[in-house]
Amino acid sequence: MIAKKMVKYVEGSSVTRAMFEEGKKMAARYGAENVYDFSLGNPSVEPPEAVKKAIIDILEQESPCYVHGYMNNSGYETVRSVIAESLNKRFGTAFAEENILMTVGAAGGLNVVLKTLLDPGDEVIAFAPYFGEYNNYVANFEGKMVAVSPNPPLFQPNMAEFESKITPKTKAVIINNPNNPTGVVYSEETIRALADVLEKKQKEYGKAIYLIADEPYRELAYDGVKVPYLTKYYDNTIVGYSYSKSLSLPGERIGYLVIPKEADDFENIICAANVANRILGFVNAPSLMQLAVAKCLDEQTDVAAYDRNRRMLFDALTEYGYEVVRPEGAFYLWVKTMEENDKEFVARAKEYNLLVVPGSSFMCPGYVRIAYCVDPEMIKRSLPAFKKLAQSYQK
Amino acid sequence: MIAKKMVKYVEGSSVTRAMFEEGKKMAARYGAENVYDFSLGNPSVEPPEAVKKAIIDILEQESPCYVHGYMNNSGYETVRSVIAESLNKRFGTAFAEENILMTVGAAGGLNVVLKTLLDPGDEVIAFAPYFGEYNNYVANFEGKMVAVSPNPPLFQPNMAEFESKITPKTKAVIINNPNNPTGVVYSEETIRALADVLEKKQKEYGKAIYLIADEPYRELAYDGVKVPYLTKYYDNTIVGYSYSKSLSLPGERIGYLVIPKEADDFENIICAANVANRILGFVNAPSLMQLAVAKCLDEQTDVAAYDRNRRMLFDALTEYGYEVVRPEGAFYLWVKTMEENDKEFVARAKEYNLLVVPGSSFMCPGYVRIAYCVDPEMIKRSLPAFKKLAQSYQK
Repeated sequence: MIAKKMVKYVEGSSVTRAMFEEGKKMAARYGAENVYDFSLGNPSVEPPEAVKKAIIDILEQESPCYVHGYMNNSGYETVRSVIAESLNKRFGTAFAEENILMTVGAAGGLNVVLKTLLDPGDEVIAFAPYFGEYNNYVANFEGKMVAVSPNPPLFQPNMAEFESKITPKTKAVIINNPNNPTGVVYSEETIRALADVLEKKQKEYGKAIYLIADEPYRELAYDGVKVPYLTKYYDNTIVGYSYSKSLSLPGERIGYLVIPKEADDFENIICAANVANRILGFVNAPSLMQLAVAKCLDEQTDVAAYDRNRRMLFDALTEYGYEVVRPEGAFYLWVKTMEENDKEFVARAKEYNLLVVPGSSFMCPGYVRIAYCVDPEMIKRSLPAFKKLAQSYQK
Repeated sequence: MIAKKMVKYVEGSSVTRAMFEEGKKMAARYGAENVYDFSLGNPSVEPPEAVKKAIIDILEQESPCYVHGYMNNSGYETVRSVIAESLNKRFGTAFAEENILMTVGAAGGLNVVLKTLLDPGDEVIAFAPYFGEYNNYVANFEGKMVAVSPNPPLFQPNMAEFESKITPKTKAVIINNPNNPTGVVYSEETIRALADVLEKKQKEYGKAIYLIADEPYRELAYDGVKVPYLTKYYDNTIVGYSYSKSLSLPGERIGYLVIPKEADDFENIICAANVANRILGFVNAPSLMQLAVAKCLDEQTDVAAYDRNRRMLFDALTEYGYEVVRPEGAFYLWVKTMEENDKEFVARAKEYNLLVVPGSSFMCPGYVRIAYCVDPEMIKRSLPAFKKLAQSYQK
């Protein structure tokens, strides 16, 4: 008696989340220390101490009706204003309060943008491999997801195929940089090429094509690599951000959208996004957390800890014979499976108590995602299992 | 270039919110103390001190990765479990952890339920006057809203018309008790009659009709009036709750759904609602606030303060000649306008610096809603203006 559209979800449920549940069951059976769960992007590094201090200071100093009360659906003006200033300082942009809309995490922000933009049948392009939830978010508004094929071994987007897949029905392109699941950072060269293709196609079809930059991993970049700020390369960019990773607050559902005034139809987009935030049932981003992140804009979680995990796992897996995409960002390793069928590879990994996510969940079979946002001790303990798994294919 | 469906929202925007903005402008012009803003349901009574203590205790005692991290999409097991126990103790129900799904406020919860249940074209019945956002929530999932006409002077639902409006396409009925905007509490007699009609129609059509009980005002009831707990009267009931009013936390977006195991298709509904919470972009209810409300289940805001406001305003307005529905719950007064057109009445009220919301926003012209969740001093200052407004019609 549930909605017909929901039946497939109930049957399938999310592979990632199912793994999470299975990991808990295995931990109960084998002992938590003997199960190596690399399946979920749940930050293991603590939030900076400043977050706790900020929350307590706010509770001690501000009126509780202000801290916990309604504000504009877009968020507190002061919060939006300091976020705009912080972005301007870091990226040389020129945003103001009106360009920032506080959202219930990046997932909330993406749904707000898609509700704002999509008519039924509108096409949204993403570059495989990509976060599987994009399919669901686009389907929420009767949009049609169009995938550009994976482009191994470097996994920078395939520009020729991208251009060929843009049609008069293309309304938006989602780009996730640094990338989940590959850990790849799209280079400035990639972004320039992408912007060129989009500009050309906008002219050809005489319509706006919006670039949605999904950036929850922006602060997680290694080896000094720069993550380009997309509004500087293409006017019709809308940025979705979340503090889930940069401040290790994924459960708090706090993020924002940036809608630059250079975007076509800016006034209507801002107004519609504001309404969408309300009528989708978010209403506003959680109030106390809005105020807290505004006090922590120069803080970030201990990225060096993720970097150490990255190096340890990358070096070991490479040594064992795995073909691993060298990750420059996020907290994922993207590994070619040692047999063609990634789901069978995942099943075999499970025999060694290794939980990883099949690439098919990201529209890219033949690979697995290994989330290294975990305790480094677990990585150390897991290495013999990864070695045995590799050896089982090398016999 | 925004979605066609969003154009009407951008043109219209919400009357309630527009009033909120206008109130701020008038305050700047005339001085805040000379503008009487009764337009918004933003609690004026502070959260109980226990909320602050709970948040600080959690931050001091628990691991930050637990407090701010991901959990199951339905919420922390411990939180859901203590909420179930608390409901059982108060209402003699038999809920367990599995029956509770933590949501981003009641608005988030309603969207989750409707995503879970509605196929395009399914009908959802509500009793006018009702919260205008229901129209938008139902439209989000291509449902069709069906209104039962207002039933003055007592505004208990009209059962004969209700029965006549149930069709084979009816999937759900939304009931809001205590009621926004009337302040009326639907009696046990009303609820029994409603359940009888639903049982009869379920049999007639051989299908489930779900009763969605939207209960953010449950704790705000006066004169010792009892608010029936609907799962006890009708098996196919799903309850949506929010701590916005009971703990004065509207900005925090924290609430829950109750999905009883007696509901038809229970297993699928629970699973689909869990997925809906995720794919709509809520992901989970804000984590720290989940833990905080779980420590405050026996707390509530100072309801007596709202009660004093209620009496002061009801007595004065009645004395001035207004026809006012005696409110037993929520924090709204529902007043018959002194001219037929409620929007013109609202405009005239504004000339006396009185901001109220027209009944047409609640599908019931000829009335206005006066939100008395405000500073009692403002009510006192506003009384001469209400008197003059009445006199302007009595000349």
